[in-house]
Amino acid sequence: MSERKWYKSAGPCGDTVVSTRVRLARNLDSYPFPCRISEKQQAEINQKVNDSLLCDGSFNFRYIDMSQLSDTEAMAMAEKRLVSPDFIKDRTAKALIVSDDETISIMLGEEDHIRIQVMRPGFDLEECYRVADKVDRILDAHLNYAFNEKLGFLTECPTNLGTGLRASVMMHLPAIQSAGLLNQIMTTIAKIGLTIRGTYGEGSSPLGAMYQISNQVTLDISEESAINNLKSIATQIMEQERSYRSTLIKNPAVEDKIYRALGTLKYARIMDTKESISLLSDVRLGVACGLISDTDIDTLTGLCIDTQPANITVITGAASSQERDRQRTEIIRRALCSKQA
Amino acid sequence: MSERKWYKSAGPCGDTVVSTRVRLARNLDSYPFPCRISEKQQAEINQKVNDSLLCDGSFNFRYIDMSQLSDTEAMAMAEKRLVSPDFIKDRTAKALIVSDDETISIMLGEEDHIRIQVMRPGFDLEECYRVADKVDRILDAHLNYAFNEKLGFLTECPTNLGTGLRASVMMHLPAIQSAGLLNQIMTTIAKIGLTIRGTYGEGSSPLGAMYQISNQVTLDISEESAINNLKSIATQIMEQERSYRSTLIKNPAVEDKIYRALGTLKYARIMDTKESISLLSDVRLGVACGLISDTDIDTLTGLCIDTQPANITVITGAASSQERDRQRTEIIRRALCSKQA
Repeated sequence: MSERKWYKSAGPCGDTVVSTRVRLARNLDSYPFPCRISEKQQAEINQKVNDSLLCDGSFNFRYIDMSQLSDTEAMAMAEKRLVSPDFIKDRTAKALIVSDDETISIMLGEEDHIRIQVMRPGFDLEECYRVADKVDRILDAHLNYAFNEKLGFLTECPTNLGTGLRASVMMHLPAIQSAGLLNQIMTTIAKIGLTIRGTYGEGSSPLGAMYQISNQVTLDISEESAINNLKSIATQIMEQERSYRSTLIKNPAVEDKIYRALGTLKYARIMDTKESISLLSDVRLGVACGLISDTDIDTLTGLCIDTQPANITVITGAASSQERDRQRTEIIRRALCSKQA
Repeated sequence: MSERKWYKSAGPCGDTVVSTRVRLARNLDSYPFPCRISEKQQAEINQKVNDSLLCDGSFNFRYIDMSQLSDTEAMAMAEKRLVSPDFIKDRTAKALIVSDDETISIMLGEEDHIRIQVMRPGFDLEECYRVADKVDRILDAHLNYAFNEKLGFLTECPTNLGTGLRASVMMHLPAIQSAGLLNQIMTTIAKIGLTIRGTYGEGSSPLGAMYQISNQVTLDISEESAINNLKSIATQIMEQERSYRSTLIKNPAVEDKIYRALGTLKYARIMDTKESISLLSDVRLGVACGLISDTDIDTLTGLCIDTQPANITVITGAASSQERDRQRTEIIRRALCSKQA
């Protein structure tokens, strides 16, 4: 895992978009869905998928037997969104195939036999889809997908039937949140089959003003249409956010809040996850608006992951919550101060 | 006023003692006390005092006609404690004689005809008294003090009768305050004729944990005894504070608070007086305990004065409270960042 992780690099429209993700739900024809599958059968699928990818050789993947991981290691993967929270609850017969830069992760034994996921920094739906599609074609060439001419790809949950595609854009929307416009946006985009929800907590003010916008419709729609719909709406929201920011940032109290957040991040010696997400969000707004040049968007995106509890433990070995709160500030200082020099 | 001001230099025991002050209340024999004096008579006294000092020539003084100052200039002097708040209310016929470094200030027309005041950084009662006594002797040689063999120096208010001396030590007592020991100290020292009160607000938790300890007894006591009593008690309190600090500073929450205070002072863009006093106090504790080396005690003492409202206006020309809150952060940043380089 020596390659630079995707979440530590810049991406397009990084001022407002943190990351983009595309996932494809796939199942094999000759096996029962995961809710009824035996451990042995899922293990067979895992083997087949891995063999197919090795045989193809286009990507450099690692195969991880999830049952061999500690709870903390598994949790750290969920914090990075390499795997879903559900995936790590019972890890028997589950496996993850992951690329060195962690942009591609393939969950084996989640709600479907195979979940191909591609994540990239910034706003990059086409590239995410292109890569996911490439992996999908490799597997399709080697394996027998459960597919119905009328319905499309068959999935365990009917909400994924059809394309099996869920694309999502994680956006940083502090100005829209502060203007109280989120409920309105939520209602509007629901009408065209999209949904928006807080990344760190639901409700009208999720922590850090981080939101995920994703498509809900998978039936009777092409992958391209689903991607284009989402792209078009996310672009509109992005432009609205930028426009509201230009007003917001002129407010001296907001400027003060942003600088104080940077000062606190650079100097605090104890900090919990909630506070760090909130302060990193404030500083992110400051960098995006050109107010702060001490650090950059990549560093802040990386910190949002490195300061999550399980990742801290993986990085530093911190065993207790107190020790993590302490190490969190060291990780932040190291990242923010190296950029300054 | 080019000389470095006293409050921007280090003093003895600066870890716990901010400054020391000695003042002598004196009146002239042939004039009524200020409560009954005419403007013309007080003006005569002002002239005589100034002439005496000029004639002697030991000190390099400036003579300031208080009626010529703006309210802001007068208020800035009160914030520096060069003059008392009462002294600047009605400034008719009042004058101030002040040394370049502002250690010596002589109020003419306060509650007494003449109030000689000497202030120095840190714990320095002897030197304050030595200088005050020197000024006193010069005036005594040229003027006729109101003096009674039995009572000593005669003053308008009977609480100053005798020595006319009030010595005070401004101490920074965050550890004693945090341990809740102040009421106990207050009761104890009252019994031996001393008093302790908050510099920025009364009650059990004055802002910034700054306290003034001063003598109350002026009758039937020598100047030396009064000074020695105060010195002995202040020394005990100082040692108690240091001892409590060694425990307090080991508390991770306290360490965190100190570093956060420094971060906020270095980065905030809007700050009111109360917050700045409180944060400067936290950082002062950090510097005194060797936790923080980015800045020093002199800088912090200077900032406690330069960030007071009227001083900000004098320094920067800021006209409104909003503008002062903004300029306050600039003054702080300039002071804290120059030290860092």
